[in-house]
Amino acid sequence: MSNIESVTLEMIKDAREALKGVAELTPVLSSDKLDPNLSIKAENLQKTGSFKIRGAYNKLRSLSPEEASKGVIACSAGNHAQGVALSATKLGIKSVICMPAGAPIMKVKATRGYGGDVVLVDGNYDDSAKKAQELAKANGYTFAHPFDDPYVIAGQGTIGLEILEQMPDVEQVIVPIGGGGLASGVAVAIKSVRPEVRVIGVQSINVASMFASFGHDEIKTVKDAATIADGIHVLTPGSLTFELIRKYADDIVTVTEDEIAAAIVALMEGPKTVAEGAGAASVAAYLFKKVDTSLKTVSIVSGGNVDITTLERIITKGLQKTGRVTQLTVRLEDNTASLIRFLSLISENGANVLNITHERENAKTEVHSCLVTFTLETLGTDHINAIRECIAANGYLISDT
Amino acid sequence: MSNIESVTLEMIKDAREALKGVAELTPVLSSDKLDPNLSIKAENLQKTGSFKIRGAYNKLRSLSPEEASKGVIACSAGNHAQGVALSATKLGIKSVICMPAGAPIMKVKATRGYGGDVVLVDGNYDDSAKKAQELAKANGYTFAHPFDDPYVIAGQGTIGLEILEQMPDVEQVIVPIGGGGLASGVAVAIKSVRPEVRVIGVQSINVASMFASFGHDEIKTVKDAATIADGIHVLTPGSLTFELIRKYADDIVTVTEDEIAAAIVALMEGPKTVAEGAGAASVAAYLFKKVDTSLKTVSIVSGGNVDITTLERIITKGLQKTGRVTQLTVRLEDNTASLIRFLSLISENGANVLNITHERENAKTEVHSCLVTFTLETLGTDHINAIRECIAANGYLISDT
Repeated sequence: MSNIESVTLEMIKDAREALKGVAELTPVLSSDKLDPNLSIKAENLQKTGSFKIRGAYNKLRSLSPEEASKGVIACSAGNHAQGVALSATKLGIKSVICMPAGAPIMKVKATRGYGGDVVLVDGNYDDSAKKAQELAKANGYTFAHPFDDPYVIAGQGTIGLEILEQMPDVEQVIVPIGGGGLASGVAVAIKSVRPEVRVIGVQSINVASMFASFGHDEIKTVKDAATIADGIHVLTPGSLTFELIRKYADDIVTVTEDEIAAAIVALMEGPKTVAEGAGAASVAAYLFKKVDTSLKTVSIVSGGNVDITTLERIITKGLQKTGRVTQLTVRLEDNTASLIRFLSLISENGANVLNITHERENAKTEVHSCLVTFTLETLGTDHINAIRECIAANGYLISDT
Repeated sequence: MSNIESVTLEMIKDAREALKGVAELTPVLSSDKLDPNLSIKAENLQKTGSFKIRGAYNKLRSLSPEEASKGVIACSAGNHAQGVALSATKLGIKSVICMPAGAPIMKVKATRGYGGDVVLVDGNYDDSAKKAQELAKANGYTFAHPFDDPYVIAGQGTIGLEILEQMPDVEQVIVPIGGGGLASGVAVAIKSVRPEVRVIGVQSINVASMFASFGHDEIKTVKDAATIADGIHVLTPGSLTFELIRKYADDIVTVTEDEIAAAIVALMEGPKTVAEGAGAASVAAYLFKKVDTSLKTVSIVSGGNVDITTLERIITKGLQKTGRVTQLTVRLEDNTASLIRFLSLISENGANVLNITHERENAKTEVHSCLVTFTLETLGTDHINAIRECIAANGYLISDT
């Protein structure tokens, strides 16, 4: 199946024609508040909220009339589900989407909204995948693979062509990698037209399967671990995508979960855009200098489908990572005067108090003292350090847990 | 000073030429997840994060060489500060910006980053304004008014021309109103070219000064009140802007704070974009049906400069307004078995528990019972009602505070 000639520049150009009127030409955004040298290709503003419709539509339009008449099936907890459902609806094809029963309610609702028949399957992703294969066999549905398919890869590659036109002076493209469909398509497009432009893949360090495979020059499966970048949570890369990335990408780097969270916050404050974890990974790689930051760079923000309640938690993490919010726990005498004295110190240091929590039922506290945790709004790591030093100099015991 | 002939279509066209290469042609975005009939003009993606640079630059470029050589001064806690600072820097003019000492740190930092000399003034906005007038007199600075100036209004009006080109089938434009600079400029532009397109202004119901003035046909000053839409927090409309809006706008409507918060969340989930309160007010007016929703509508999202820690709180409010998060307080026996029984009920109803708080030190609690507050993730108002009915039917007392 692995055959790197199966994806060509011609196929990508052909996909681009086919996608006119289906996928948006998403904008390239920049913001002085982010970094003057960095732009983003905003695929979070794509129809269905991610790039996935490009590959899904390009695959589905390639089906024979007989295949199309029987319908397609996919398995996904997220963006691929929405991409397949909307593509199928646009082409008049029936689509069945197997989703794990625990998938976020809003994603199930969106997939149904795009016309997909959602089958909720108890268990994890693998159980859904198994169910999808069973249903495909029983009903003659075509299985729409999320990444390891030449038509899917060619569809995602259209982003590469758009970047070269929208940003003729680009020197480096950073692209998130899960299974590798987006990265391989973009790499083929960029390197076929402008081989001197660097193409760098990014993964979460928690699930760095393509990174490990690239480093060892053979496909590796990594241990499962949690990541806020659920869109690139893939334990084994595709075989075709691996071959293409090995040939066309210049490098793969990793970012931490905290770095991804900080990038999500930076994207909200700078270009005012909402990215999901996978989408922000490419920006994190630049902001935290995992790549050459002297080059004129575009980071592909692959999607924006993040649950808003999850986003709230990510914002908190991102603010902590950049020193904009911090928590301090100190032992205080259990009376108001003592609290006021401490707050005066905080105020003199120019921090804003967001929350105060008293803890009295703790093994560490004595009867007449209590542990008080202050959540503070701060200006950055230097500011936090200055505050901590001042507090310590005034004889308070900071009790970090 | 009030002279509605002082702002013409010619001036707006002229401003547009001058703004080329200075202000961005911001995109018109849409999202099926928001409303298929509604688009947004994304001025939150404008340089400095709001539309203000358009009017500020157009004003500053109109200064005589002598005025320009002396410098300009402005008073603002937010977007106008950044617009004036960047415009002045681009034109090689010195700018002094008086800001209240309590202004958000990030806005002070951004204004300095754009090259403005920031003077922090103790007290409120009026104290800063007084200080700005003093400094203007003492140093010969030109005072850059945030809205009540023909050049400022003409600059903001360029958004109207862009909308007509980007969305030829538009039938209705919704625009936030504070002092009225944006709304009057856009109204002049739209009505001069396509008088059949409706132009509707929006204010927060908490600070509805132009709404009151429009209704009484004379300028009214309203009482001060808090609003999350700080960008349109103006107690007295401009006199020129009032005259223009009275002549050109079709109507002014109001939205509540909760509706604004819900619109901010809807903009994050649909078009994946971050709006400040003022910017989202125009979207709230459409989503909560304060306008004719059968018309092909564009809402101007005027800015995106919202403090991220504030945004976290707004998200919570927005989720509550749309029934996506709710709090329930019930009296439970103070033991774990009782807690588990209650949680099983919640689980059966398909809600997700975000937080649990026990309150024992409350006048309402007896010794062996406690008040427990559950924060739940829910699907909407109907879901919340179903859960409450089920809880009540099982004999629990819901104690709303």
